[in-house]
Amino acid sequence: MTSIGFIGLGVMGREMARHLVRAGHRVQAHDARPEAVDEIAREGAVAAHSVAEAAEGAELVITMLPDTPQVEEVVLGPAGLLAHPPAGRLLVDMSTISPTATRRMAAELARAGIVMLDAPVSGGPSGAKGAKLSVMIGGPEDGLARARPVLEVMGSTLVHVGEVGAGQTVKACNQLVCAMNLQAICEALALGRAAGLDLDKLRDVLLGGAASSWMLQNLGPLMLAKDASAGFRIDLKLKDLRLAGELAFELGVPLPGTALATSLYLEARAHGEGANGNQALFRVYDRLSNQAEEPSGQPPPAR
Amino acid sequence: MTSIGFIGLGVMGREMARHLVRAGHRVQAHDARPEAVDEIAREGAVAAHSVAEAAEGAELVITMLPDTPQVEEVVLGPAGLLAHPPAGRLLVDMSTISPTATRRMAAELARAGIVMLDAPVSGGPSGAKGAKLSVMIGGPEDGLARARPVLEVMGSTLVHVGEVGAGQTVKACNQLVCAMNLQAICEALALGRAAGLDLDKLRDVLLGGAASSWMLQNLGPLMLAKDASAGFRIDLKLKDLRLAGELAFELGVPLPGTALATSLYLEARAHGEGANGNQALFRVYDRLSNQAEEPSGQPPPAR
Amino acid sequence: MTSIGFIGLGVMGREMARHLVRAGHRVQAHDARPEAVDEIAREGAVAAHSVAEAAEGAELVITMLPDTPQVEEVVLGPAGLLAHPPAGRLLVDMSTISPTATRRMAAELARAGIVMLDAPVSGGPSGAKGAKLSVMIGGPEDGLARARPVLEVMGSTLVHVGEVGAGQTVKACNQLVCAMNLQAICEALALGRAAGLDLDKLRDVLLGGAASSWMLQNLGPLMLAKDASAGFRIDLKLKDLRLAGELAFELGVPLPGTALATSLYLEARAHGEGANGNQALFRVYDRLSNQAEEPSGQPPPAR
Amino acid sequence: MTSIGFIGLGVMGREMARHLVRAGHRVQAHDARPEAVDEIAREGAVAAHSVAEAAEGAELVITMLPDTPQVEEVVLGPAGLLAHPPAGRLLVDMSTISPTATRRMAAELARAGIVMLDAPVSGGPSGAKGAKLSVMIGGPEDGLARARPVLEVMGSTLVHVGEVGAGQTVKACNQLVCAMNLQAICEALALGRAAGLDLDKLRDVLLGGAASSWMLQNLGPLMLAKDASAGFRIDLKLKDLRLAGELAFELGVPLPGTALATSLYLEARAHGEGANGNQALFRVYDRLSNQAEEPSGQPPPAR
Repeated sequence: MTSIGFIGLGVMGREMARHLVRAGHRVQAHDARPEAVDEIAREGAVAAHSVAEAAEGAELVITMLPDTPQVEEVVLGPAGLLAHPPAGRLLVDMSTISPTATRRMAAELARAGIVMLDAPVSGGPSGAKGAKLSVMIGGPEDGLARARPVLEVMGSTLVHVGEVGAGQTVKACNQLVCAMNLQAICEALALGRAAGLDLDKLRDVLLGGAASSWMLQNLGPLMLAKDASAGFRIDLKLKDLRLAGELAFELGVPLPGTALATSLYLEARAHGEGANGNQALFRVYDRLSNQAEEPSGQPPPAR
Repeated sequence: MTSIGFIGLGVMGREMARHLVRAGHRVQAHDARPEAVDEIAREGAVAAHSVAEAAEGAELVITMLPDTPQVEEVVLGPAGLLAHPPAGRLLVDMSTISPTATRRMAAELARAGIVMLDAPVSGGPSGAKGAKLSVMIGGPEDGLARARPVLEVMGSTLVHVGEVGAGQTVKACNQLVCAMNLQAICEALALGRAAGLDLDKLRDVLLGGAASSWMLQNLGPLMLAKDASAGFRIDLKLKDLRLAGELAFELGVPLPGTALATSLYLEARAHGEGANGNQALFRVYDRLSNQAEEPSGQPPPAR
Repeated sequence: MTSIGFIGLGVMGREMARHLVRAGHRVQAHDARPEAVDEIAREGAVAAHSVAEAAEGAELVITMLPDTPQVEEVVLGPAGLLAHPPAGRLLVDMSTISPTATRRMAAELARAGIVMLDAPVSGGPSGAKGAKLSVMIGGPEDGLARARPVLEVMGSTLVHVGEVGAGQTVKACNQLVCAMNLQAICEALALGRAAGLDLDKLRDVLLGGAASSWMLQNLGPLMLAKDASAGFRIDLKLKDLRLAGELAFELGVPLPGTALATSLYLEARAHGEGANGNQALFRVYDRLSNQAEEPSGQPPPAR
Repeated sequence: MTSIGFIGLGVMGREMARHLVRAGHRVQAHDARPEAVDEIAREGAVAAHSVAEAAEGAELVITMLPDTPQVEEVVLGPAGLLAHPPAGRLLVDMSTISPTATRRMAAELARAGIVMLDAPVSGGPSGAKGAKLSVMIGGPEDGLARARPVLEVMGSTLVHVGEVGAGQTVKACNQLVCAMNLQAICEALALGRAAGLDLDKLRDVLLGGAASSWMLQNLGPLMLAKDASAGFRIDLKLKDLRLAGELAFELGVPLPGTALATSLYLEARAHGEGANGNQALFRVYDRLSNQAEEPSGQPPPAR
């Protein structure tokens, strides 16, 4: 049994903490919302009413927070982990945040003798629920060695990708590829539809060759079934694309395709698709070419 | 044994005709370059010195030509197939050309009682050599039923995707997805490189999840090994992207991602990568972010 | 008085021919629509019932036709100008068509001793009506010298920009700049609106400095007044952008901005704006960010 | 004579402070670099060795700093203006920074009874030198009334564009339009050059009609003369485009053209053009289409 501080009990964190509890660890759970703390406490976690309480006596602290500012507050803030480190002096940030901010925090923590790993995940809520997350880990080997047994409770694939910050960078790369691959499918389906193709047949052909992708295999059916609700949310993907864009800007790398895909995701969110799954991006193409099922009230072009 | 007219003995057509000869068919082979006709004749084909000779007495004629104008000339030109149809009144165009021009030609042929199928392929020269082409077929069922045994000599996957022109449309969709999926990989690798990631490790992680694609699986290694020579040529892909763009324009479908990818392929060609494989697109990103390891040493394109 | 063949009596051509009639020239006018010929004949033109009749005995022939295929038919077709050249052996094509096709036709005409100028115009229907067209002319000096007095009846600015085809190329450049400058305004207004700025004030500031442009000066007010009807039509601009895109592709020049702008114009046309003026492009941005005045029925994003 | 705190003596601020000194005001000048303070003190300013000293007894404080974090530090930091406000309780931030951060700071200052105006400028170093800046001002009327006489010493055009933050928003709009208008010119010149046009003639024609813009009038000659050194720097424009992109993201407004232009500016910077003027963007198009006349000979950016 390991004593673990766990900070951030949202849609993802709640499930992850639950697995740690079930695996028999002592989980000192904290969240800004007291009701989230109460809920997990009823399942066997120790309610921690502050970051300091979560960290107290723990071997390591795990953070699973919405974005960079929240992690910075929890780590560097006056009531944060730098001031109140866990006994084991190890922090594993599983949030998806800025790699640059990650490196900056890790450097500050290092000066106080605290080790930080970044360990963002992919797999979404269903991966969290099923303990099947992929974890992309940056940071020192020995820190990872200590965290590994705990991480293995939550994830099915753990990959050590480099120095601290590398996990976040790999995650950013992953997300931009997903977005562009999805956009590619949208464009093929939009063209095929306008040309009168049978879209199920089109998808089958594309899956059979060089155009095949995970997104086509897994999201294609949802797109064609117009099932927008399942899967990874548009607004969360947008956050990840923003992180990728900021990183690219900092490093001076022009990523025109990512920039364009981000623009389409913004358009999807502007149309109320933020809470829908990625596949709802196809609805943007519905609107682009005015083929929405509900007529928009505008006359079609006379050609 | 079927008597087959075969017109177009380029890199692809030569291999395809060869398979038909070996399978025991009578192949009346024609090409604008007499030496290409001589070559295949030495392997057992019947040398045809004109379109009319290729078609004479044949059950069907197969065309495998560079682009729309060549097919239009062979079909509708004064010495073409409309004037000199095969005995079986069946034409199978396996070139990659405009779906709109295809439908127009099919309509004209239909008025003369001639059936046209469009049957563009994917798989490239190696697929042609190995008789492992994927064939996307548009046109009437009965025409396909007659052509099928012949097509099966050349391809391993035959998919009937709809009316005449549908084969070309599916091919266009396929090619635009490939181009965008490849661009996605380029952007991830460019970002990862600038951030100092181990690119082989990055590729492994991407392959393990939602960012996975055929292109990443198959072209990723060539990109990382900087092997630009293998695979489907940039300039041929550009032709396909042009066809997709023209179709999108005709149908009034905005495809911003395809347009952007096409722009990058043009840039690759402008830098002398036209004869290289698709994976050479990554070199554009080398230049975008000024990380080329050495001057490419390739001659600029002769235009 | 010059004897002039005039072929193409559409929205533009009708006005241009009218000016030539009023200036006292003998105008042998032809159009595929007999009623268009009758109409101009009532105003003093000589009705020509064929291309040959329009050309017969004329010093020069002017063509003002919708697109490349129509000009090719009138020039190279069996009943065309190559077979029935004007007495003065001079052709001035004022249509907006492919520069490549222009050069090809000019070369064929040259072999028959006929001189061709390309002389596309800008200024639109109101410029045609007011004889205030700008004319961009490509072709030999001596041909232009002969055509100049006639062209000056229709246009207020004549610029000789180079060899034959150069007029069309300059026109293509002009149109792509207009499209991108307009898109720039759309983006600024969309951002300003979302931020709650007073858009008239925004426009004033932009006009006062480095962001100023003809488009902002002239179309800005129409955009803000939501007056979509006036001005150069979206679908005609799309034709010009297609010509620019094709030329760029042929020359191997990547033009990502032009490609993106074209995509937005396609989107505008898909939403029924084809017959509206360029400024209707702003409505695309209305939709992009879901700020259309008529609610689309979709709930706004909860942010 | 007004007593003015002036914080930020960089390329712009130095010139602006100088004008205030010459106009007879008491200028308490501060900069993080003591040598910059010494320099302006020799010209008659009062050397201020801290923010507090700059503010002490002043009617208003002007800030002219590189980016958002510097302004936040000077305003909200422990030794900042919130803790050490000027006697007149008025702050005029003339830096170009985030409008969102501006509003946040203004709200905090308001709670302490301090009024903040945002007043970013356009016109660049030459405008600062010549006291010919355009100033875009957001904030309350009465604050502006008090600041106006001081602002008029530095700028020739003062426009009040709305509430606090509006000045920054207008500036962002201005900068994105400039970037896209410039990109438009680059694309026209790249196409024209590839087609063999006389580029000076092309520019003349474009200037004469609907494609005309301030950028074409003013930067066109520098582009054609390949004079990259003059004018507003690429890397400063990139900062402004980043601010525009962040604002668009926050407001959920898709700006695909701005995103693409930003990508091109990043490419320019990656090739060592960061310190060159905007017109150096054309060199990106040189590389896009491989028409660079000679290696640029510029050192790569030190990152």
